[in-house]
Amino acid sequence: MSERLIAVYEVPGPAAEAEKTARAIAFEETVEVPFEFPLPSRIREGIVGQTGTLAPVENGRFRVEISFPASLAGGRIGALLNLVFGNASIWPGVRLVDIRFPESFLSAFSGPNYGAAGLRALLGVQGRPLLATALKPMGSTEAELAESAAAFARGGGDIVKDDQNIVDATFAAFRSRVSRIASAVSGTKCLYFPHLSGPQEELEERLRFVLGLGLKGVLICPAIVGLDAMRALADRRKAVFMAHPAYSGAFYAERSHGIEHSLYLGTLMRLAGADITVFPNAGGRFAFTPAECRAIAERGRAPLGGLAPIFPAPGGGMNLDNTAAMAADFGTDAIWLVGGRLLMHPGGPEAGARAFREKMPS
Amino acid sequence: MSERLIAVYEVPGPAAEAEKTARAIAFEETVEVPFEFPLPSRIREGIVGQTGTLAPVENGRFRVEISFPASLAGGRIGALLNLVFGNASIWPGVRLVDIRFPESFLSAFSGPNYGAAGLRALLGVQGRPLLATALKPMGSTEAELAESAAAFARGGGDIVKDDQNIVDATFAAFRSRVSRIASAVSGTKCLYFPHLSGPQEELEERLRFVLGLGLKGVLICPAIVGLDAMRALADRRKAVFMAHPAYSGAFYAERSHGIEHSLYLGTLMRLAGADITVFPNAGGRFAFTPAECRAIAERGRAPLGGLAPIFPAPGGGMNLDNTAAMAADFGTDAIWLVGGRLLMHPGGPEAGARAFREKMPS
Repeated sequence: MSERLIAVYEVPGPAAEAEKTARAIAFEETVEVPFEFPLPSRIREGIVGQTGTLAPVENGRFRVEISFPASLAGGRIGALLNLVFGNASIWPGVRLVDIRFPESFLSAFSGPNYGAAGLRALLGVQGRPLLATALKPMGSTEAELAESAAAFARGGGDIVKDDQNIVDATFAAFRSRVSRIASAVSGTKCLYFPHLSGPQEELEERLRFVLGLGLKGVLICPAIVGLDAMRALADRRKAVFMAHPAYSGAFYAERSHGIEHSLYLGTLMRLAGADITVFPNAGGRFAFTPAECRAIAERGRAPLGGLAPIFPAPGGGMNLDNTAAMAADFGTDAIWLVGGRLLMHPGGPEAGARAFREKMPS
Repeated sequence: MSERLIAVYEVPGPAAEAEKTARAIAFEETVEVPFEFPLPSRIREGIVGQTGTLAPVENGRFRVEISFPASLAGGRIGALLNLVFGNASIWPGVRLVDIRFPESFLSAFSGPNYGAAGLRALLGVQGRPLLATALKPMGSTEAELAESAAAFARGGGDIVKDDQNIVDATFAAFRSRVSRIASAVSGTKCLYFPHLSGPQEELEERLRFVLGLGLKGVLICPAIVGLDAMRALADRRKAVFMAHPAYSGAFYAERSHGIEHSLYLGTLMRLAGADITVFPNAGGRFAFTPAECRAIAERGRAPLGGLAPIFPAPGGGMNLDNTAAMAADFGTDAIWLVGGRLLMHPGGPEAGARAFREKMPS
């Protein structure tokens, strides 16, 4: 018997309607023909998704498992997304909440290059959360960004990344800016991750340039460049990939539709090679719940074939008064991503970094 | 004064709340710091988005224009998506409904290789809609798919494409299957567009193989491979790109959030080099309204710098009884994409193609 990949959906009720939707997804994501199409039995039995039993969940919705032959996803991210959420993405009210992969599917993926343990080894830091910040605001000079990075490093910061809004008009401008900031943290224990963006043709060359400077990784927006584009880069270049959620909110921000936060930001990012997954922390300016945030962290470290566990990096709206909640929610295996509040510390980024480091559990 | 790019959003009310959200987007998408951050005036005035006047729309929501320096999008699709819907995508209730581009931004893009007129010239067909079908179901043999394609061509079909669910396990399997189907339509006037998918590293090689067979284009899922990945392929290889909406529904299926159907499926696909944009027709199994469908077609041909107009390809749930509505909604400048109902015609795909051709306005 061939191995099955199981996708779990939540769909609108009532039950009869939910059953119809589930059956429609099973057809739509495979053969995409009307129910009454005269399918040969080898296709009807061997290809069409098989729907399980409906289970009621909240808001009158139902949860249903649909299993597909794993071979239809072909060990590839593109085929996987097409199979479990291709046309299904277009149905109002359909939310993909889980995927259970057979080992044979997962074994086709290398996953994160470093993972959480590898990143700790790079930094030589054990037993406490890591402290990260973002270089901003957009429009600052190279010198200003470099000085912020250096100050953060002096204060004991672990990772400084470009803000994902930082834009360099040309590769030459990218080279100049990134070199300047890299020099500013050189000789410290702080890692600098530039934002890997630009035209698709240039991404790998920019990554090579970054690694050539001795830097260990990059910030990247997988929803923009493509999940499989990140996977391809990660397969070819040993770098840390810090995945930023820009442009991906359409998938999870509405709870009645899309892909569950933790599946998208936890499992799929990890499968596509992210070592770190950035997401908006609960209580910040976005509307993630504490449970949704904890679930992202959980899926980042849950067993997933031979793929290394990754770091959750909750960020956004964090300040010195809510660090206890961070510690309680995520424990030591998290990256605290603190932007504006750290840069705005009355003593500057150095004092800001020191203040947040002091609040960390160990 | 530098040129501005204007993004138009709809946000939840009441007015005071909408105003706060608009201001937050203007900050979030540029400097991403708290309002009280001590920004230098060159950044506060020159970088931060500028919000216009709120206008009430339906459901207690408000429409607001936010203008950004066009240079922040840098003539690149990735930077554009990050600027207009990066972190904004994560806010519940925010919908991007329009973008007005300055010419300087658009002039950085080549857009569609063929466009609607170029595709008509390739086919030598004027003055009527084009007829397209999808090869399916998944699980069919090469011989079965090839025979369907040949029959469709004999019946007067214009374009036969792979179903986007068709998966070839390897490049070798892709070569074999695509060659077989290409031979089957060779010598006819019918164009065959194979599905360009697979690992990101192989996409361009697969495209070269397709063009090497004498085929003129491909089907592609830009939401999966990345919009800028399609743009890069289209810039390097003169092929027709038929864009399929798989996995993109999360952006528009919920009307209270995401990106307006016609902006995503019309404008952005065209900007990224699509010659044809496929979308679910109203009245089919997805929930697009007739107005939403007409708007996609409209944005595909509206002035957009020097970019060629493209073909709308409404598909899904089409049958011989609703062709009058198709003709009324889209006129002659559309591709009728008919899958299951054409293949299921009692006389087979040849008679099916003939029957749909007879229903076309001219």
